[in-house]
Amino acid sequence: MSIYKTRLQALRQEMKAIGIDAYIIPQTDAWQAESLNSCDERLHYICGLKASAGYVVVTMDKAVVMIDGRYTVQAKEQVDASLFNIEYYTNTRPIDWVIKNIRADDIIGFDPWLQTISDLESMNKTGASLKAIENNIVDTIWHDRPAPPVQTAVLHDIEFAGKNIDEKLNLVAHNCNALTLIAAPDSLAWLLNMRVLNNTQAPGLRGYAVLNPTSKTITTYTDVDCSALSHPSITFKPLHDIQNIHTPLATPKSAPSWFLEKSNALIDHDPCVMPKACKNDIEQNGVRASHKRDAVAVKNTIDWIKSSSDITELDVSQKLIIERTKTNSFHGVSFDSIVGFNANGAKIHGSPTKTKIKGDGLLLIDSGGQYVDGTTDITRTIAIGTPSVDMKHKYTFVLKAHIALATAIFPAGTDGKQLDAICRAPLWANGLNFAHGTGHGVGHFLNVHEGPANISPKSTEPLQAGMLLSNEPGYYQEGAFGIRLENLMLVQPHPDFDEHLHFETVTFVPFDMECIERNLLTVAEQKWLDEYHALCD
Amino acid sequence: MSIYKTRLQALRQEMKAIGIDAYIIPQTDAWQAESLNSCDERLHYICGLKASAGYVVVTMDKAVVMIDGRYTVQAKEQVDASLFNIEYYTNTRPIDWVIKNIRADDIIGFDPWLQTISDLESMNKTGASLKAIENNIVDTIWHDRPAPPVQTAVLHDIEFAGKNIDEKLNLVAHNCNALTLIAAPDSLAWLLNMRVLNNTQAPGLRGYAVLNPTSKTITTYTDVDCSALSHPSITFKPLHDIQNIHTPLATPKSAPSWFLEKSNALIDHDPCVMPKACKNDIEQNGVRASHKRDAVAVKNTIDWIKSSSDITELDVSQKLIIERTKTNSFHGVSFDSIVGFNANGAKIHGSPTKTKIKGDGLLLIDSGGQYVDGTTDITRTIAIGTPSVDMKHKYTFVLKAHIALATAIFPAGTDGKQLDAICRAPLWANGLNFAHGTGHGVGHFLNVHEGPANISPKSTEPLQAGMLLSNEPGYYQEGAFGIRLENLMLVQPHPDFDEHLHFETVTFVPFDMECIERNLLTVAEQKWLDEYHALCD
Repeated sequence: MSIYKTRLQALRQEMKAIGIDAYIIPQTDAWQAESLNSCDERLHYICGLKASAGYVVVTMDKAVVMIDGRYTVQAKEQVDASLFNIEYYTNTRPIDWVIKNIRADDIIGFDPWLQTISDLESMNKTGASLKAIENNIVDTIWHDRPAPPVQTAVLHDIEFAGKNIDEKLNLVAHNCNALTLIAAPDSLAWLLNMRVLNNTQAPGLRGYAVLNPTSKTITTYTDVDCSALSHPSITFKPLHDIQNIHTPLATPKSAPSWFLEKSNALIDHDPCVMPKACKNDIEQNGVRASHKRDAVAVKNTIDWIKSSSDITELDVSQKLIIERTKTNSFHGVSFDSIVGFNANGAKIHGSPTKTKIKGDGLLLIDSGGQYVDGTTDITRTIAIGTPSVDMKHKYTFVLKAHIALATAIFPAGTDGKQLDAICRAPLWANGLNFAHGTGHGVGHFLNVHEGPANISPKSTEPLQAGMLLSNEPGYYQEGAFGIRLENLMLVQPHPDFDEHLHFETVTFVPFDMECIERNLLTVAEQKWLDEYHALCD
Repeated sequence: MSIYKTRLQALRQEMKAIGIDAYIIPQTDAWQAESLNSCDERLHYICGLKASAGYVVVTMDKAVVMIDGRYTVQAKEQVDASLFNIEYYTNTRPIDWVIKNIRADDIIGFDPWLQTISDLESMNKTGASLKAIENNIVDTIWHDRPAPPVQTAVLHDIEFAGKNIDEKLNLVAHNCNALTLIAAPDSLAWLLNMRVLNNTQAPGLRGYAVLNPTSKTITTYTDVDCSALSHPSITFKPLHDIQNIHTPLATPKSAPSWFLEKSNALIDHDPCVMPKACKNDIEQNGVRASHKRDAVAVKNTIDWIKSSSDITELDVSQKLIIERTKTNSFHGVSFDSIVGFNANGAKIHGSPTKTKIKGDGLLLIDSGGQYVDGTTDITRTIAIGTPSVDMKHKYTFVLKAHIALATAIFPAGTDGKQLDAICRAPLWANGLNFAHGTGHGVGHFLNVHEGPANISPKSTEPLQAGMLLSNEPGYYQEGAFGIRLENLMLVQPHPDFDEHLHFETVTFVPFDMECIERNLLTVAEQKWLDEYHALCD
């Protein structure tokens, strides 16, 4: 019997024992992290899938793995189809799947630490009978579950942070009118000017903090070693002491639903989210400097690929680390590199394999680094041998989309959905599209995915000056090749037009001229490309 | 004492008599019509303002006229400031104004025929004490209130409608699973293939109908003379018999809140809305034919303006009617023409005046007709004398925006907000914008503003094949000039790309070459313009 069948059986026994008929297992931890410690890899434990997002939902007679389009191929390869159906949570929400697959008065269990208040609000609207199970039942059956890692926070210097703790406390206290919960590791790291570097993909501080805006003090509940910081306004307590909080809190909807009972008010974002997203001048300088160093590493890697034979996708991801390590102040990758040659490039979030990079085609390389002065994220797609005319056409259409966004000027108040359409229009005009967002916010020596703004068909958050966002349109031909062209951009006030914004591109690595059909570009697009390449030298 | 002071006093006495402390008077009728019969001009009766939208709110010691930006000037001229404050309902909703200006437990009266279910849902969220007053109290004090006009419905021939009543009944019954209320005059007119031509700006049938999807029969409650129609599935009853309905209904949220008590389910749209919006092949042929005839009238008018001296804006609006009357099957204007020379053109909804059209500048002409085979709506801005370089630049940027939308190709599911951004991008790129939607749906020999789709920053309804929409970007320089360039377009499946849509422009009147800076257009834009002009001949 497969280990997954055994685990499912054990899980169902446990479900029965505690009186629930279905159980929802999201791929996340108690801080909604994308990059999990191995003790939190419950999705992988239960079904074998390695994915950065998704759900397993188990009833007494059915089980489903719910993924998004990025993991279609992986799910087919990694998940036993005799045990799990595969569905898309982008089409059917896990809660809706459960409701369809249980009887009307069956009880659905969930972990209140892994489901946020927003999640719970949304699930409650269905009228389902939900039951919070405080001790995760995957953990109960997971006998060799790893211990949580020991983590240590280091100070993030004012030279890079731009504002000290007192300045930040003043800034955020101004936006609060009651005791406020901060439950996001990156908010806490930003506010305390600290970073946790055990996992550079999520250098935030896993803890929960209560901000008192009157006294401008903070009590932080965490098991991370924060002894590096000594500040009169900041108190640290062990994580489990959070159970003793009895004063009501203003709580962000993104906090674990466990906090709902402690809350007297719900807020959309914690008060750090906006000042953290809008980088200050010192941070912006760091963004530029770190991207310049990062560009050297990426250019060196591309040169090395072009002059090598007999290398694999995995070799490229190693080489990227080697080259980045040669630069100053590199602390690690900001996410696992995606390196995909031809058909592998069509897997939007595929991992690098031993596939040889040889013959003709396109190689997609999406990678990024954590530097003390900034976080980078860049995708280039390069020619290997002689790409086909079709590949070059598609590459050029993606480039047109990239330029449309890079050159956009827009009034204050414009949101990511509007900019997303402006970016996609040149692809749509050729019947092409891509099944992911156009851009995400990026932190400052913090998460490579940072809210509140995004550029996607669902983003209704207006962009604001100082935000750092990716510009990464793509095109993916399943089984053939993938193209993605990604730069990071700072949102800046437009110099000529009042109340208008535009983008300052901060990534400077040339696009591969061997992939570009120049005659498909307009005069204005050619001009942008030439000027951009001049700046890449 | 002014008549408005007397009327306010009478209203307040009546309010006192029935035990309410505030009363909301919206400028609309029991069908949410934009174009009112004189018996429904309550706003004008109470405060003297002539406006197509707005509210008067009266408390025991205060009164306010709530308008949008279009009526700022009119309100100042027509309303006695010693009796009424002027506020913008676009900033403060009437209900919020009332709440601020009464005591906590005061009772707010409203007319359940004039406020929709959506309105009431939104007002109820404030927690205010609301009381429906079935007999409008303006009518109670309005002793010489005109009688409602006698209206007669005529048959709309299958030659133009494309589908007969039975086909339409089958179509809509399929989308209903219970007795369903149809409360929109244009839905009813569409379903019954009838038109009421007393007021061509709103040729719908003012009535309420109950659709039985099982028996595929309709009972219509109306005072409009519908004796022209005899159909076994359709029964007509006097309007006041609606009071006798006792079976619960599925009710559109846009229906009068009076129906809330009769409803067991609320629906977003009545079942006619979508098939009405998506024009059938016969209707599409009629759209094309009516636009061809309409174009001749508009071209003749423009030629006449260009060769005339000593004419006024009012003369132009008259000439448009004269020229349209010369065409076949013209029944009247689809809305009051907007004709604005220079500074007057900057008033987005200004009425034509006696202003002479002479000297140098731009003349904006927005007009439309009701033809038996289609409704038209076109705006052209033309050169008078020699427009300034600045005017020509701005005109050309508006034209670029118009072309961006006209040439857009987009996947099924794309909504009006996304297309709006694609249209505005070329204006934004030059720091320009316009304070109205980019496009609205247009009926078929019906309302010139027709839901559910729009092209605007707020439109989340996906466009569908067969919809008829306007493309009308603009630019307005207050006190100087206004530019708007409007064609109507049918949404069509794209011939080459599966699941993609594009637009077929159906308006064929040339843009004024004297206003265009050709060198500001891209090669592709020039090509579109030349091909379009070739089709206008």
